[in-house]
Amino acid sequence: MSDGPKTVTAAVIVIGDEILSGRTKDQNLSFLAEALNDAGLQLREARMVADVEAEIVAAVNSLRARFDYVFTTGGIGPTHDDITADSIGAAFGLAVDYHPAAVDILKAHYAHTGAELNQARMRMARTPAGAALVENPVSKAPGFRVENVYVLAGIPSVCQAMFHSLKHELAGGDPVRSIAIAVHLAEGTLAKGLSALQENYPDVGMGSYPFYREGRFGASIVARGQVPERLTAAADEIRQLMRDLGGEPIEEEAGQN
Amino acid sequence: MSDGPKTVTAAVIVIGDEILSGRTKDQNLSFLAEALNDAGLQLREARMVADVEAEIVAAVNSLRARFDYVFTTGGIGPTHDDITADSIGAAFGLAVDYHPAAVDILKAHYAHTGAELNQARMRMARTPAGAALVENPVSKAPGFRVENVYVLAGIPSVCQAMFHSLKHELAGGDPVRSIAIAVHLAEGTLAKGLSALQENYPDVGMGSYPFYREGRFGASIVARGQVPERLTAAADEIRQLMRDLGGEPIEEEAGQN
Repeated sequence: MSDGPKTVTAAVIVIGDEILSGRTKDQNLSFLAEALNDAGLQLREARMVADVEAEIVAAVNSLRARFDYVFTTGGIGPTHDDITADSIGAAFGLAVDYHPAAVDILKAHYAHTGAELNQARMRMARTPAGAALVENPVSKAPGFRVENVYVLAGIPSVCQAMFHSLKHELAGGDPVRSIAIAVHLAEGTLAKGLSALQENYPDVGMGSYPFYREGRFGASIVARGQVPERLTAAADEIRQLMRDLGGEPIEEEAGQN
Repeated sequence: MSDGPKTVTAAVIVIGDEILSGRTKDQNLSFLAEALNDAGLQLREARMVADVEAEIVAAVNSLRARFDYVFTTGGIGPTHDDITADSIGAAFGLAVDYHPAAVDILKAHYAHTGAELNQARMRMARTPAGAALVENPVSKAPGFRVENVYVLAGIPSVCQAMFHSLKHELAGGDPVRSIAIAVHLAEGTLAKGLSALQENYPDVGMGSYPFYREGRFGASIVARGQVPERLTAAADEIRQLMRDLGGEPIEEEAGQN
């Protein structure tokens, strides 16, 4: 017997009133969902919380204990509503102060641009004690990491650039791959046979997603697993089930998620 | 002194592996964020959790204790991965069984369509004991409510239709309105003055969101509050701050969120 696939888990915390108010559509969660899976991490929970320290602390402490990695986005700019660094410090019981290397980065950046490195901008150099910096190639003010919690910016282009800066640090597991097969059969017709297949493949997750396209109802069955041969075998049985029920399997993409 | 505005809070739980995997982009959260605010509810937290009963139970029990209303989406179809009804039952310690009125709805629907009301489809009539049904004008299988927790479908068109069916039941508070003002000034330039304004307006939340549009950097300042006169006064002071710093305020929309 082999040891089976290695599973590494992650959670995301999207911080910001503007997301919860519906004004701003979050783009970071869908980016991270895919990027984490590419890195061999399975996103297991996501939370969107308000700009309130107690809420951020509660989310960070709940999730960092349960998952291998936690990624936060938002709240690390220069304005009064940017409270993520202080909240992470509070979550870990660590003092928050100016990080010398972050101060150097900001000094060099503002010397270059000619803008004043005022007290507000200096806020962007504050981190919990002992934090490791995450490089920001877009706008320089860095993200940071404390233990298994990575703190990234909310602006999508910056969040993405920071993730690319840090991803080599992640110790990923075996990635999840998926095979999606659609059919013009109702979910309720497929359900019994699919349930039996799921029992035979506990290591391959099977999800059923109904659709209505071009005037016809159907369901897309998505099989997801870490062991390629098991995934392929499960997909073959799903196609056979569809044919047995009078449907013609329609291949959708095989994917990394 | 008046009693001040009435605040009613809400949380959303998006249930489903397919959202966390990044395969499916969630559309329900942004819909609910806006629809709840229109109904006088403030969305304070959102969670996306996997199709795992313990995870759903933990999220429901944490959020229903802290917020006035909780709305879940997803996991109420006929297939084995639809475990929301059982999870809500477990969260409340209630038995889950066939709801007589839901059974009647499904019988009438499948008699009409001619499809078989098999055991899988009958799963869609199961609710925790004492649940109140939420009408589904799109595909008939109902949502339901237990105490302050509403359970809605994951398919966006059905989720939206169910919300319209239930919204008259919600006891909302005073809605939050917003005024957004953009300016071609850097956040770091605005930060000090904006922080002082925020201290003077504890009842008006002020958020700062940097942007880069058409080759120019700037920031959008969003003021949000429940008392229209205070919101208007705060917005006037924000515009004046921008002018004092050499910027020209650019009006964005005044909104319901």
